[in-house]
Amino acid sequence: MVRDVTVVFEPEGKRIKTSLRSTVFQVAKEANVSIRSECGGKGLCGKCRAIIRNSNAVSEVTESERTHLGQSEIDSGYRLACQTKILRNVTVMIPPESGSELREIRVPSLERKVKLNPFVKKCHVILPKPTLSDFRSDFERLLDALSQQNQKFASLEIDYEILKKLPSTFRSANWHVTVIVWNDSRIVSVEPGDTSTSLFGFAVDIGTSKIVGLLVDLLSGKTVAIGSIENPQVIHGEDVMTRITFSTVNKTHLEALQKLVVDGVNKILYQTCAEGKVNPHSVYHVVVVGNTAMHHLFLGIEPKYIALSPFTPAVKRQICATARELKIETNPRGLITFLPIIAGFVGADAIADLLATGIFESDELSLLLDIGTNTEVFVGNKEDLVCCSCASGPAFEGTHIKNGMRAVIGAIEKVRISPDFEVEYEVIGDVRPKGLCGSGIIDIVADMLKLGIIDGQGRFSRQPEMPRLRKAALEREFVVAWEDETATGKEITVTQKDVREIQLAKAAIFTGCSILMKRKKLRGEDLDRLFIAGTFGNYINPENAKFIGLVPDVPTSKIRFVGNTALTGAKMALMSRNMREKAEQISKKVRYLELVSDPIFKQAFTKTLLLARQKI
Amino acid sequence: MVRDVTVVFEPEGKRIKTSLRSTVFQVAKEANVSIRSECGGKGLCGKCRAIIRNSNAVSEVTESERTHLGQSEIDSGYRLACQTKILRNVTVMIPPESGSELREIRVPSLERKVKLNPFVKKCHVILPKPTLSDFRSDFERLLDALSQQNQKFASLEIDYEILKKLPSTFRSANWHVTVIVWNDSRIVSVEPGDTSTSLFGFAVDIGTSKIVGLLVDLLSGKTVAIGSIENPQVIHGEDVMTRITFSTVNKTHLEALQKLVVDGVNKILYQTCAEGKVNPHSVYHVVVVGNTAMHHLFLGIEPKYIALSPFTPAVKRQICATARELKIETNPRGLITFLPIIAGFVGADAIADLLATGIFESDELSLLLDIGTNTEVFVGNKEDLVCCSCASGPAFEGTHIKNGMRAVIGAIEKVRISPDFEVEYEVIGDVRPKGLCGSGIIDIVADMLKLGIIDGQGRFSRQPEMPRLRKAALEREFVVAWEDETATGKEITVTQKDVREIQLAKAAIFTGCSILMKRKKLRGEDLDRLFIAGTFGNYINPENAKFIGLVPDVPTSKIRFVGNTALTGAKMALMSRNMREKAEQISKKVRYLELVSDPIFKQAFTKTLLLARQKI
Repeated sequence: MVRDVTVVFEPEGKRIKTSLRSTVFQVAKEANVSIRSECGGKGLCGKCRAIIRNSNAVSEVTESERTHLGQSEIDSGYRLACQTKILRNVTVMIPPESGSELREIRVPSLERKVKLNPFVKKCHVILPKPTLSDFRSDFERLLDALSQQNQKFASLEIDYEILKKLPSTFRSANWHVTVIVWNDSRIVSVEPGDTSTSLFGFAVDIGTSKIVGLLVDLLSGKTVAIGSIENPQVIHGEDVMTRITFSTVNKTHLEALQKLVVDGVNKILYQTCAEGKVNPHSVYHVVVVGNTAMHHLFLGIEPKYIALSPFTPAVKRQICATARELKIETNPRGLITFLPIIAGFVGADAIADLLATGIFESDELSLLLDIGTNTEVFVGNKEDLVCCSCASGPAFEGTHIKNGMRAVIGAIEKVRISPDFEVEYEVIGDVRPKGLCGSGIIDIVADMLKLGIIDGQGRFSRQPEMPRLRKAALEREFVVAWEDETATGKEITVTQKDVREIQLAKAAIFTGCSILMKRKKLRGEDLDRLFIAGTFGNYINPENAKFIGLVPDVPTSKIRFVGNTALTGAKMALMSRNMREKAEQISKKVRYLELVSDPIFKQAFTKTLLLARQKI
Repeated sequence: MVRDVTVVFEPEGKRIKTSLRSTVFQVAKEANVSIRSECGGKGLCGKCRAIIRNSNAVSEVTESERTHLGQSEIDSGYRLACQTKILRNVTVMIPPESGSELREIRVPSLERKVKLNPFVKKCHVILPKPTLSDFRSDFERLLDALSQQNQKFASLEIDYEILKKLPSTFRSANWHVTVIVWNDSRIVSVEPGDTSTSLFGFAVDIGTSKIVGLLVDLLSGKTVAIGSIENPQVIHGEDVMTRITFSTVNKTHLEALQKLVVDGVNKILYQTCAEGKVNPHSVYHVVVVGNTAMHHLFLGIEPKYIALSPFTPAVKRQICATARELKIETNPRGLITFLPIIAGFVGADAIADLLATGIFESDELSLLLDIGTNTEVFVGNKEDLVCCSCASGPAFEGTHIKNGMRAVIGAIEKVRISPDFEVEYEVIGDVRPKGLCGSGIIDIVADMLKLGIIDGQGRFSRQPEMPRLRKAALEREFVVAWEDETATGKEITVTQKDVREIQLAKAAIFTGCSILMKRKKLRGEDLDRLFIAGTFGNYINPENAKFIGLVPDVPTSKIRFVGNTALTGAKMALMSRNMREKAEQISKKVRYLELVSDPIFKQAFTKTLLLARQKI
């Protein structure tokens, strides 16, 4: 392929040589320039906006671009990166709303106390030297010394690769060594000298859009550092289905997706280790959670069949592999545990939610929602727990919403519309707003409903237009922020279509809740607790959520917003073998229900489309 | 290094370019031309004889060569390969006595019946396809199907590498698969379709000089084929100590020794698989035995410390590793088990001897000798078993004996000297003799003692010389075969030095026996059985062995020569998990005694140097 044109990406100033007729989207991927996309470059989502001043340098505006961009935008040089082919040297500006975003890290709010008992332990031993009257083998000598510290260690196993090096390790260390033991059953490493005062673990939540990691001191149980990055797989599509489709093309694609997420995890590992002044080789255990698609992609397992009915995953129980096998750059002999999953759409992150909230071992009857593109719903207590997954869509994460965005810096997260249609809002990071995150949209929809701007069916009212309530090209919309208030210089609005998206999402979630409750023969008043987890914004207004029927109408005192409990649960499993065992039990015990096959699904769904308080 | 001379090795006709002043021994190694050596090329053993007609092409005859070769030999072009440097293009003839030998394979004579219950099993399963009402994960689906065949299989583990491929394996095989299960605990492979009618194992005895392997059908327990080769490590020295010394030079040397023995095992694997028309990938389990040095070298473990007091091995218990880790070319997911060892000088081959003879589970009181360079001695029964190792030297294997050789084709294995000093002998393979193996030497020494040619002290008598009894350069010798009878065209004799070697060897063995008996407070008449294992020749004459005091003077009816029981024991462990567990128990239970530290060692040794019947 002839590489004969140069593309410069602004504002980063990155240059790359490429071939004629590549799309701007493809070149951005090659150059590692972050650019939003929900459809993976198919011209469907309209999110990969780029500004190109010299229109002669690129191909002509396509039909798809005319659908997604206004004429005035096109006149200003706005294009969709996936539709625009490069014809000569060109400078491409990635506007703020399309570029990578600085993510807001929120420390999980809910953490149950666990007793520190990690899977990986260190023991320092001083071995007696061999003599003619004590000619035990090196390994038996080691086991005898270890079993004096812990009787269980008398029958430890050892990897052949480690065993091979025992004679030279022992003698060069003058018989003082530190042994790293996995799960009280297996020696995974032998280090010279006494290194027993330094032992770390790493907990990771691989989200479809964000990876968050915690470096944990396994001797004290304290979090040393926290880090996060955008999931680098996002260059192959923002949503799970686009990535799965990409992975099915060939083996190289699957490997590429695995490499991206592994590299991402390594980045956070290095980031947190640098911050905590910890050598990554002192990290001997990593507990990973994520949805089932992330689980398969991280482990390099073909994810095709979790996307096809009947959505079967390759495996439910937890997976252990070595850091070396997975190319995670902790100690190469460290172990990686991916917590068990429950079903094709209920992953290890949901298991971690259960660990963090403890509903699986509580007498209290709880309803737990983890709201995301797929919303997992759990109902029950320690006796019995059922769950389902609802295809709620990514509306509450800001996707498929015209000015939607994730709950990161620049997102409007709280809104109040006054009776005279004036708008007050709060922005994450106290900056000029770029868009709306889930909690902000909920507030707007609730207030529009209260003020009659929309009705219970979600239709914008026919009342006369006014500055904030107006008809745009095809549909009505409500202006939340004027162009002079925003970071992008463009208005932030909520459209009729946005309201429809919210209705569909909340109906999906509510339908899941009501079918589960019905199966358990429960009513709303039977519930003791309602846990709401998710990353749509931590400061959701429960009254508004109930008012539009997103969550069941139960007393607010029973509702608890718990944030990213997936990461908390992963940390708990890292700190405690007991928790890991519980995770395994949960995976076996929780009953997963496939909603689509439920006869009352359609009827329940239609009923819950209504924007109104909903009893359950 | 300039490579500017060509060497041709005859009779094979192999050509190799090499550099000036390399020794013939070094070049032979490079060219993979087999040449005997006991000292590894140090000019000490005199065994690496080569014939070079053009003496101008090589360096001058050295002092070491004058010691080991006669003048007439030197005149005929005989040289020691390790002493001879190459000065120009040259042709080197490797005479029969120095070259590689066609080994006589003897099927082990003793084999106890074992119930077929191998560690590796195959199960064919037909899995129900997933549906919306049966959305179990692929792995749980498999386990459920397997547990219907065997309840134990409900909690099988699986390697991450295999798990990864389950989704595509199941679907491409249309849900008919065959699972290979290790030790009823772990799935090591999943093959498409029904391959359950073909499952093989391989048993190997790695001897210092010879590697023997058996291909076994694990569904019937039948031996499919047997093969053997010279241990290719022999190019780095015939004895264990030379190889260990070589291995300590650097890591590359250790790796080279490991590669040689692994390649050797692979050769026999291919040989036997070809003979049995078996795909090596159907071989899923290999049981290996060998002495402790072979154990360490095969596994790539530094063997230095088993050669240094107090002779500690790296590990006693059995080692499992995958075929891939050890580069054994069975199915890459096959498993390699090296049976446990007992001590630095009592290896897995001795454990296999015990499995084969069953003395560890018998009421009868047994004495077991496995005669070799190190002779292992066991005394006891199922209540208690003690053992020791005697540095008997390799005399009974034909090494350090002037015309000694191993019990292979061309070796004189039986001898009778008549009262008129005429000699009758039998040669393995019924060919012209090349030398003497252990059993032949025992016969000669016994008959010389009976006829007064030597006395009890081992001294040749002062009676007048005669054709067969004469004084050579430095010492007296007895001619066994005249030059016109032999394959080499040179006489085969037994020298005063040879008799001394036999005395030292048998004294070492007998001392071991008597100390062990004393420790157990036993006398010869307490013994129910005397087992003699080893490869010095299967047809040892027990009367002669008793007559010279090699074995204790017990009734011949109690003596049993059992041949290579190491290989038999390895096969038994391959066929039966029960046997493998017994091997582990034996390794833990048998008490090893270090003889050198015994106060009566010296006295006992001196006493048993005498060539005479010895009570114990």
